Amino acid sequence: MKINILGASTTKFGELWNVSPRTLAKEAMENALKESGLKASQIDALFVGNMLSGILGNQANLGSLIAEELGVQIPAFRVEGACASGGLALHNAINGLKAGQYRTVLVLGIEKMTDHNQDEITNALMAAGSDEERMAGATFPGVYALMAQAYMQKYKVTEEDLAAISVKNHYHGSLNPKAQFQSPITIAHVMKSSKIADPLKLLDCSPISDGAAAVIITSDDSIKIKKPVYIAASEVATDTLSLHDRKSFTSLSAVVGASATAYKKVGIKPQDIDVCEIHDCFSISEAIATEDLRFSEKGFGAKDIAKGKRTLFKGSIICNPSGGLKACGHPVGATGIKQIVEITEQLRGEAGKRQVEKAKIGLTHNVGGSGAVAVIHILQN
Amino acid sequence: MKINILGASTTKFGELWNVSPRTLAKEAMENALKESGLKASQIDALFVGNMLSGILGNQANLGSLIAEELGVQIPAFRVEGACASGGLALHNAINGLKAGQYRTVLVLGIEKMTDHNQDEITNALMAAGSDEERMAGATFPGVYALMAQAYMQKYKVTEEDLAAISVKNHYHGSLNPKAQFQSPITIAHVMKSSKIADPLKLLDCSPISDGAAAVIITSDDSIKIKKPVYIAASEVATDTLSLHDRKSFTSLSAVVGASATAYKKVGIKPQDIDVCEIHDCFSISEAIATEDLRFSEKGFGAKDIAKGKRTLFKGSIICNPSGGLKACGHPVGATGIKQIVEITEQLRGEAGKRQVEKAKIGLTHNVGGSGAVAVIHILQN
Repeated sequence: MKINILGASTTKFGELWNVSPRTLAKEAMENALKESGLKASQIDALFVGNMLSGILGNQANLGSLIAEELGVQIPAFRVEGACASGGLALHNAINGLKAGQYRTVLVLGIEKMTDHNQDEITNALMAAGSDEERMAGATFPGVYALMAQAYMQKYKVTEEDLAAISVKNHYHGSLNPKAQFQSPITIAHVMKSSKIADPLKLLDCSPISDGAAAVIITSDDSIKIKKPVYIAASEVATDTLSLHDRKSFTSLSAVVGASATAYKKVGIKPQDIDVCEIHDCFSISEAIATEDLRFSEKGFGAKDIAKGKRTLFKGSIICNPSGGLKACGHPVGATGIKQIVEITEQLRGEAGKRQVEKAKIGLTHNVGGSGAVAVIHILQN
Repeated sequence: MKINILGASTTKFGELWNVSPRTLAKEAMENALKESGLKASQIDALFVGNMLSGILGNQANLGSLIAEELGVQIPAFRVEGACASGGLALHNAINGLKAGQYRTVLVLGIEKMTDHNQDEITNALMAAGSDEERMAGATFPGVYALMAQAYMQKYKVTEEDLAAISVKNHYHGSLNPKAQFQSPITIAHVMKSSKIADPLKLLDCSPISDGAAAVIITSDDSIKIKKPVYIAASEVATDTLSLHDRKSFTSLSAVVGASATAYKKVGIKPQDIDVCEIHDCFSISEAIATEDLRFSEKGFGAKDIAKGKRTLFKGSIICNPSGGLKACGHPVGATGIKQIVEITEQLRGEAGKRQVEKAKIGLTHNVGGSGAVAVIHILQN
């Protein structure tokens, strides 16, 4: 069964203080519907990826709430797995189609984060961590800083090497009108930015963002599609919540596992990927991800990017043409779906200034917690 | 494809102050595994139904957390739809099997509520409602009291008629060693209990509870099953979050829609059901549910029960042999799975003192919010 993408759209990401979560959801859904040429009444079910609405806004039951906003009383679900909520919602939506339970469904990722103060957000995000990490006073930059320390020491990687990842992603963001940050930065900017958790500095970290993204997928092959893009694989794997329970600090086993299964099911090698969206919540995350996804040799993820190899725009496997979490923004529940929207636009050849040439196979890499869950999707045209 | 139940177990429901959520989850999962004869390594994926862990305990990412507790790194998901979270998790698990993505999965429902004070719980539960309801100061007993007022007026139903529902469910609970309340009560007890939201009194309301329930389901027909029970239908429907946006206060359209589809898919009539578990968060909920499920004529749900007709133990469609939410308890995320466990035990003939004679077809009715989402499962042996 082919799972085709009929519509894909994101709102602008950023500090969107003047819109409610309902308005944000509506905008993404209406644009995806418009693109698909479908009416809301043709949608069989709704899957919502969201992490924080309950914790920060005391609003649960987001499936029903968003279905109400869509104006239809259809089966609706909220799927949550921290920052991987969007990807996990899509995975369950795909299962719903393959099961024959639904034919055409809408998947929305949404998060509204900037209306809350910094302490509230920091604590809320630690809901993705473990009791031990919270009790030790860890924050997510702190947890990823531990990974960065271990990685830099093991592979003789410098802060400048890591900084190159943010520079690349800000450059890509400068080409994306939906990105939260559209200004290019330099290594010097990153190095001079405030230290958050050694060795991570402000410009190594993705921002707090608002945003929504929607995709409409179908198993109905009677629907004509102008520029067909389909989802060839959707794989999920998990790991321990706590960093200290893992065998390695410099590789995420959930990413290794889910991506290996995805490559195998589609019958491709990592090098066959033309374009990908990586979950770069911190610069170190992208360095490790490019290795776990087998784009770079172990220890060379950051170095390859610093040398302008492989993952920069016009390279051989372009990573994060949207600007990634770093520059495009990271409304946590929306991120996994925004990645799908970006790859869809790339494979359709509709990505404007940031179009990757001859993009035929794309991958998305969405992670929850410090690697406790990973979702890999492979898209083809 | 047949979706067989291999294992089904609940913990004791009640005020379980001495156990953590992890311990509670582990107990339910280990007992379900023991019953199935499987090892954790034979489980392909995990689906967790939970509403409040983020809001009350600042713990998200429950899929990964519970997978860690199970000791396996498998795909794991948290599905949330307020008090219907358990049923919605099962629905997505079934889709996962039918899609061919997974063969044998575990579905856990869990909630830990009694460690928090009354105000915290009351506010947290209103996360299932709408902004308007919260801003008006409504609580869930308040919202259901409005439904009860409308229902009593429209159909000339008395408080004593509604009280009969609690009396029936406490009688059933007295036969269930896992129930939170195992003491029978009388109409006089209900009538004398404190008023919560007119006309609902304390004994019209389900309690705040802790508990976990787990089922293991498979599409693998090579696994031998001693007493086979399978899931014949799994249907979901939604409605508006706010009561005031609905056409009727005396019927839940999500329940009407999901149950009609389920009956049709299985090819049975409501009267073919032998035993069912109803989401009686309040006495009024069961009255309306028996009508929406078409067990009773419109306006006769409570009256039929008051007359000892139909739904009482030894009647023709036994409702809530577990004691229902009222007497068995209502750990919200666990409820939808506990219902499946109860019906499984009934269809296997293993329900002990509360065994419904010749039970062959069972139904579960799991609702989120004041009817914003409904999940119906039909089980057969």
